Amino acid sequence: MFEFNIIAECSRTGARAGELTTPHGIINTPVFMPVGTLATVKSMSSRELEEINSQIILGNTYHLYLRPGSEIISKAGGLHKFMNWSRPILTDSGGFQVFSLAKLQKITDENVICRSHIDGSLLIMSPEWSMDMQRVLASDIAMCFDQCSELPATHEKLEEALNRTTLWAERSKEYFLSHNDVNNQALFGIIQGGTCDDLRERSAHEIINIGFPGYAIGGLSVGESHEAMYHTLDILNNIMPPNKPRYLMGVGYPLNIIEGIARGVDMFDCVMPTRNGRNGTLFISSGRVNIKNKNNAEDFTSLDPECDCYTCRNFTRAYLRHLSMCGEILGARLCSWHNLRFTVRIAEQAREAIIAGKFPEFLERFNAKFHDNPQTQN
Amino acid sequence: MFEFNIIAECSRTGARAGELTTPHGIINTPVFMPVGTLATVKSMSSRELEEINSQIILGNTYHLYLRPGSEIISKAGGLHKFMNWSRPILTDSGGFQVFSLAKLQKITDENVICRSHIDGSLLIMSPEWSMDMQRVLASDIAMCFDQCSELPATHEKLEEALNRTTLWAERSKEYFLSHNDVNNQALFGIIQGGTCDDLRERSAHEIINIGFPGYAIGGLSVGESHEAMYHTLDILNNIMPPNKPRYLMGVGYPLNIIEGIARGVDMFDCVMPTRNGRNGTLFISSGRVNIKNKNNAEDFTSLDPECDCYTCRNFTRAYLRHLSMCGEILGARLCSWHNLRFTVRIAEQAREAIIAGKFPEFLERFNAKFHDNPQTQN
Repeated sequence: MFEFNIIAECSRTGARAGELTTPHGIINTPVFMPVGTLATVKSMSSRELEEINSQIILGNTYHLYLRPGSEIISKAGGLHKFMNWSRPILTDSGGFQVFSLAKLQKITDENVICRSHIDGSLLIMSPEWSMDMQRVLASDIAMCFDQCSELPATHEKLEEALNRTTLWAERSKEYFLSHNDVNNQALFGIIQGGTCDDLRERSAHEIINIGFPGYAIGGLSVGESHEAMYHTLDILNNIMPPNKPRYLMGVGYPLNIIEGIARGVDMFDCVMPTRNGRNGTLFISSGRVNIKNKNNAEDFTSLDPECDCYTCRNFTRAYLRHLSMCGEILGARLCSWHNLRFTVRIAEQAREAIIAGKFPEFLERFNAKFHDNPQTQN
Repeated sequence: MFEFNIIAECSRTGARAGELTTPHGIINTPVFMPVGTLATVKSMSSRELEEINSQIILGNTYHLYLRPGSEIISKAGGLHKFMNWSRPILTDSGGFQVFSLAKLQKITDENVICRSHIDGSLLIMSPEWSMDMQRVLASDIAMCFDQCSELPATHEKLEEALNRTTLWAERSKEYFLSHNDVNNQALFGIIQGGTCDDLRERSAHEIINIGFPGYAIGGLSVGESHEAMYHTLDILNNIMPPNKPRYLMGVGYPLNIIEGIARGVDMFDCVMPTRNGRNGTLFISSGRVNIKNKNNAEDFTSLDPECDCYTCRNFTRAYLRHLSMCGEILGARLCSWHNLRFTVRIAEQAREAIIAGKFPEFLERFNAKFHDNPQTQN
C-alpha cells in the first residue's frame, strides 16, 4: 500500500517529480500539505480542500490528543472518518507542539512531561505514546517522535536533541512495527541537527541507518535565515536516499517551497496559508499583499488575475478588504482559500515544470516575479 | 419589473403561496430571507447561499453606511456587484439599528441624530437619507424609514412612534419616487403600533392609504409573547390588502414562521439562524439542539437525518460538537449552514403544503414535532 516512484528529475537542480502511493490514494509530488490542526484545516470544508486540489492534509497529534481525545477519534473509526476526509492524511508525532506550545516540565531520554496549553493538565509523552496515538488517528503517514530545537541553539543543545531523536526513532520504529497497522500506515523518520553541518550529517546517517520508507527534515524554519536553510538542504540532498520521499517540515513560505524543491524536497506543510489568510496577508504571483491596506479599498479588480481559486474568480480586492476590516468569517475563509490554493498550486506548477524539463526556468521566473521582504516572513 | 401573484391559498388558515417578481428574479413565497448584515450572510459564501436555495437576502443599510460606506458601494455598482450576489436583495431602512444599536442622541419628526456604534461618529438619519442610501445599495426592495419601539412600551410611546412612522412613510415615498430607480426598486411600507390593537389598526390603515407595492409588519419579535405576536398578526391579516406581499420583520424562530404563514405572512427575515449557529444552537425538525452538550460528544449520527443540507449529509454530531467546543470557524460555518437551510426549508415545505391543499395538516404536524421551550427563544 505504500510506494514511491520518481517519474522525472531536473538535470540541473535536485528537483524531482514523483508519485507517492498511500492507502487513500496516490499523491503527486512535489506537494504542499495544508495543516488540519484540530481535525479541520482552519475555515475550510473538506470539499473545498478537494476543490483546491489538496492531495493530502496534516493532522496534529498533540492537539487531537487534547481535543477531542483519542477515545472519541477511536470510536469514530479514525481521523478520516471523524472529519469526513477521504484522501491521505499525515500526522505529526506531537513532538513539535510539546516543545513549542505545551509548558515543558521535564525531558529525559525516557519521556517528556509537560502541561497542556489548554487546561494545564499533566501529560506524559514518549515515542510509544506517539505511535499509539497515531495508530488511533489511523493516518496514512505517521512520524517518529523527535526533539526539535528552536534556533539559534548551541551545538551542545542541538547534539543532545539529535541523540535523543535517534534513540526515539529506534523506539518509534520498534513499537510501530509491533503495534501499528503496518499495511496501512507508513512511519517516516525525522532528521534533526539544526544548522550545524556536522550534526545534520550525523543525524541523517543515523536515521537513514535505522531505515524508514520516507525521511523528514525537522528543525528548520524555526528562526534561521533562508540561506542557512538552503545550505542545510544542500547538505542533506547529497546524503538522503534518492528513492525515498523527503519532507521538509513546517515550511510553507512560497520562496522556501520553490527553493526546497530545487534541493530535492518532495513534501511540505505549514500553517502559514491559513494563519496569514485570517490576518489578511495574502500571497500572489507577484509577492505579498496586505489586503487591509487602504489602497485596496476601492480596487475592484481580482486579487490575483493569474489565480484559478474561488476567491480570485469571484470577488474583488475591495470586497476582501471590507470583509477583513470587519473581521467577517467570510473574509478569513476567502483569504485562507486563496492562500491555500496559491501554495498548493506553486508545488503543482513546479511539478509540471520538472516533468517538462523546464524547472530551472520556472525557478528563475518565480524568483524574479515574487517580490517580498524576506525579513517579514511569518 | 415588480409583481406579486398569489398562486394558492389555504381554505382554513390565512396561508398563501405566491410569486414575487423582482429585477433579479422571481421569489417563491412564503420565503425566509437570510440576513447579510455587512454584505455577507455571516460565514456563508454566495454559492452556498444558492445551494441552500436562499432566494433573496437582506442587507442592513445602517451597517453598510458605516462600513464600507456609500462611496465604495456606489463605485462597485451596488450591493449585488460588491458582494457578488445575483439574486434579489431587500434592504432595511436603517431605522431598526438606529434605535437598537447606535447611541441615540435626539429624535424629532425631522430626523434622528445618533452616534455610530463603531467609532462614535455623529450620524444624521432621515427618510431622505435612507432612500439615498438604499438607492446606492440598489436593492430590489427598499424599506420606508420608520421608528420601531422595543416592547413593552407605553401606549403613548407607541403612538408617538406610529405617528412618526406615518409621517416618514409619506416622506420616504415622495423622495423615493423622485430620486430612486423606480423601475428597478420597489419601496415597501412598514406598519408599527406594537401590540396595541387600536394602534396597529390605525397604523395599518394610514400606511395602506399612502400606498405601497408591499407591506411590512415592524415592531414585533421585540420582547412580546408569542401569543401577543400571533394576535397582532390576526388583526393585521384582516386589514392588509390580500394582493400585496406581507413581510414580518425580524422573525426567524421556526414556530413563529409557521404560525406567521398561517396568518397570511409571505416574507420573513432574522439573524437567528446564523447567530445561533455560531453559538452552537441548532434547530432541527424535532426542536432545539445545543450541539455543545456532552451527550453529543460520542454521537456519530447526523444532526438531522431529515435534513438535506451539506452539514447533515456529511458530518456527525460528535464532529460538530468538537468544532464548536474548539471555536473552529468550520463549526460556525457548518452550524450556520444547517440553521439557514432548515429555516429556508420550512418556508419551502409550508409553500408545498399550501399548494397541495394540506397546510393545516403541515402546521399541526410541525407543531407536534417541534419541541422547544418558547421562553428560551431570542
